[in-house]
Amino acid sequence: MSLAEDERFMRRAIALSRQAGLIDCTGGPFGCVITRNGEIIAEGFNQVLTERDPTWHAEIAAIRQACQHLQTVDLSGCTLYTSAEPCPMCAAAVYWAKLDRLVFATRCSDTAAYAEFDDSTIYAEIQKPARDRTIPHQELLRSEAQIVWQDYQQQRDRTPN
Amino acid sequence: MSLAEDERFMRRAIALSRQAGLIDCTGGPFGCVITRNGEIIAEGFNQVLTERDPTWHAEIAAIRQACQHLQTVDLSGCTLYTSAEPCPMCAAAVYWAKLDRLVFATRCSDTAAYAEFDDSTIYAEIQKPARDRTIPHQELLRSEAQIVWQDYQQQRDRTPN
Repeated sequence: MSLAEDERFMRRAIALSRQAGLIDCTGGPFGCVITRNGEIIAEGFNQVLTERDPTWHAEIAAIRQACQHLQTVDLSGCTLYTSAEPCPMCAAAVYWAKLDRLVFATRCSDTAAYAEFDDSTIYAEIQKPARDRTIPHQELLRSEAQIVWQDYQQQRDRTPN
Repeated sequence: MSLAEDERFMRRAIALSRQAGLIDCTGGPFGCVITRNGEIIAEGFNQVLTERDPTWHAEIAAIRQACQHLQTVDLSGCTLYTSAEPCPMCAAAVYWAKLDRLVFATRCSDTAAYAEFDDSTIYAEIQKPARDRTIPHQELLRSEAQIVWQDYQQQRDRTPN
């Protein structure tokens, strides 16, 4: 991947961030594209406000679209370009989707400096053990749920019915 | 919230985990319900396989459904019951959605012990600075993207068009 190509894809992600945050105001100024073999296969932008969905971040939207396009949950071989360093939700989604590479423009510290989106508090929270988190986390009925897991471990066929 | 009520809601989340992982095989055995004022307002289960979407975790699905139901992105006043301690993607989503409280059954260590879903590697990855992550993260065109943020900072009306 050449620098010129990287810059072209990132400029598209930045254009989507402008569209989201400043033109259509669908949510914060966050845009994202996913490429494969030098072509854009998915785009996403923040639509938290218009979709009334706190998980509709640019990266999540683009990952969903890319998986629909390729009909797989495995985005190996793909690169994700995001206008802003991902929040922990989107960062983890990048790992679940097994993307090859991530390119970002602004840093989390920029996002916090320019607007009220401060990912660092969430990064800090989810690093804590569950019992120490600000939103109370409580364990309940562990042994009942473990029975499901034991059955799952024994299950040979896991293809959808 | 009484213990009996907590257990009732958690048993529903566990039943959904069984449905997902063992009966319909839509994805791993993960189920979730969200309650408000002692009533279930949303349910979710893992549908990664059937929806071909690596982000379709039980908690994300339930958060989306609860927000649709209440027509808001703010789930203050709600409790989330999940059959398994959330992965970092879902843990962060709980913070974005501003839930009051989270109750989980099995621990991340159970999930890793019984199956191939090992969240701990993703928790460890996203704690690292971007440059040290296993999936390469690279910064590009930061100053171009900052211009969008500066415009956003000045923007008075952020309501959707």
